[in-house]
Amino acid sequence: MKGAILYGPRDIRFEERETPEILNPTDAVIRLSATCVCGSDLWPYRGAQPIKGPSPMGHEYCGIVEDVGSAVKSVKPGQFAIGSFFASDNTCPHCRHGYQTSCQQKEPVVGAQAPLLRVPLADGTLVPLADLPSDDLIPSLLSLSDVMGTGWFAADAACVQAGSTVVVVGDGAVGLLGVLSARQMGAERIIAMSRHPARQKLAREFGATDIVAERGDEGAARIMELTNGVGADSVLECVGTQESMMQAIDATRPGGYMSYVGVPHGVELNGAGLFFTHVRLHGGPAPVRRYLPDLIDLVLRGQIDPGKVFDLMLPLDQVAEGYRAMDERRAIKALLLPLAQT
Amino acid sequence: MKGAILYGPRDIRFEERETPEILNPTDAVIRLSATCVCGSDLWPYRGAQPIKGPSPMGHEYCGIVEDVGSAVKSVKPGQFAIGSFFASDNTCPHCRHGYQTSCQQKEPVVGAQAPLLRVPLADGTLVPLADLPSDDLIPSLLSLSDVMGTGWFAADAACVQAGSTVVVVGDGAVGLLGVLSARQMGAERIIAMSRHPARQKLAREFGATDIVAERGDEGAARIMELTNGVGADSVLECVGTQESMMQAIDATRPGGYMSYVGVPHGVELNGAGLFFTHVRLHGGPAPVRRYLPDLIDLVLRGQIDPGKVFDLMLPLDQVAEGYRAMDERRAIKALLLPLAQT
Repeated sequence: MKGAILYGPRDIRFEERETPEILNPTDAVIRLSATCVCGSDLWPYRGAQPIKGPSPMGHEYCGIVEDVGSAVKSVKPGQFAIGSFFASDNTCPHCRHGYQTSCQQKEPVVGAQAPLLRVPLADGTLVPLADLPSDDLIPSLLSLSDVMGTGWFAADAACVQAGSTVVVVGDGAVGLLGVLSARQMGAERIIAMSRHPARQKLAREFGATDIVAERGDEGAARIMELTNGVGADSVLECVGTQESMMQAIDATRPGGYMSYVGVPHGVELNGAGLFFTHVRLHGGPAPVRRYLPDLIDLVLRGQIDPGKVFDLMLPLDQVAEGYRAMDERRAIKALLLPLAQT
Repeated sequence: MKGAILYGPRDIRFEERETPEILNPTDAVIRLSATCVCGSDLWPYRGAQPIKGPSPMGHEYCGIVEDVGSAVKSVKPGQFAIGSFFASDNTCPHCRHGYQTSCQQKEPVVGAQAPLLRVPLADGTLVPLADLPSDDLIPSLLSLSDVMGTGWFAADAACVQAGSTVVVVGDGAVGLLGVLSARQMGAERIIAMSRHPARQKLAREFGATDIVAERGDEGAARIMELTNGVGADSVLECVGTQESMMQAIDATRPGGYMSYVGVPHGVELNGAGLFFTHVRLHGGPAPVRRYLPDLIDLVLRGQIDPGKVFDLMLPLDQVAEGYRAMDERRAIKALLLPLAQT
């Protein structure tokens, strides 16, 4: 089997790898209907996050269950299933509280940029669909595996409610789907911070009512202007840098909520500074497993179309071009289609 | 009039100061029934927070309204009133959201360790009682001005609910009243972190079910042991140091709430570290004005007795001994009684 392997900064190759198989009785193997490149893949791709030797890439997936281990009860071969980018047992105390990405048995899912994928803890991780979905739904269903679930968590962790004023920092796929999520949750005003015309357009399609192109202190000042000096009820930080975190905190009203859903890189928060803002903080790796059943339902009923973030579709063997296009911001997000047989 | 003035580290004097009077039409002047020394007064007292020359001290107060400015409508001379340590208009958007300590017109109240005190924005800041309270209620009513309101905010910001498992970091008066507050809110288990026998005893009186004497990593490990490796639902951080903040974060379960209510001193939070804990953070200067009506009611009905934190009562002119006793941890909190006439 051939799959994507990162060798070093900007060196991603599509080459022979071991074919995934059942290693533990709780495993499943899935034949992917589609996979994609994540914004978080760009950190190691750009060399901003070290890797320990050649690394199989990809953690977003959906597809047909090919095989299951002897202990797996809730999914069976032939079913279409979606799972989170972190495997979880879905029964431990943290899972029961809805934090499956902090599961006591959690395990990263790795190597999804390939035709086949081993998913650990299949019963806890995978959500099967009752029927095989039509092809046109695949992009939206795939997005639930990470990017849409992460945007949804951003809005949920920032307690977006009917009537809220919301700011979204970051116009990557997560930020754009944060806009869509805030809209679904009934936000009245959604201010998307973006300076990129194609992304501004999609933000508006997803429900943004205002666009702010300024960044940093200027960006926060513009938010203050737009909110009569009050700040937003909810701010979704979808970047993960020091500048974006501070911009998000500064845009939140006292007692408002700021969520952060991208792994912070080089971020330090001053305790006293944060104290006097009165901002509520919540973030972390999105527990997308918590949201999967509801989000699958929204997609199947045609209520949301998160698959629109995929503005580049490539055959899987052109995965390197997917990374390049996203790195250079030519594409919002690249969807990868495995070849018919490998 | 004589009042307390801080000249420098451990140099507090009781000496002649200007007598407070109405400066703005929205002011009131109060004749204090009692005042006290705050844990936060110890930061400048110990030299850990610089002062710009001689500083009138004290910000906790209750007493009889002596005079009001021409614009004041909701309190009148002769009434007994309590106010927050921050003056607020109680009408701006931040106040309406319940964050009066972030009021757009906020002003610190200073110089309360004296017989008379000017309170700005009296209509927004003061809550008058219908009748004059009996003397035995004065300590509890005084505590609502800051320390009890701060303990209550700690529990509220950490979303303590019926059945919650709660940890309180810090056995100062705020921490102890955080225990009392958590109890009132229906917490099932309240673990107080304290190594001081008299404070442990009061914590138990206020409702602590467990005492942990260990600190730092050891303390967090002990909390994990006591909660079957899960962590607490709500952790109240009532100290404000790097060690206590980290101890509090490490004691919280993923998705749990950590509140911090003492001004952080030298605290830096690593973004990525915080991200992977999944902990929700909320803190800041307690908006005690929000809670005053309900807390006054609880005191008048005999439901809570927060005045128990005052284990040292002194005439106001011995204010220096009050600071010393708290600095040396001989006293939890010193109540100061103005002399009959000054």
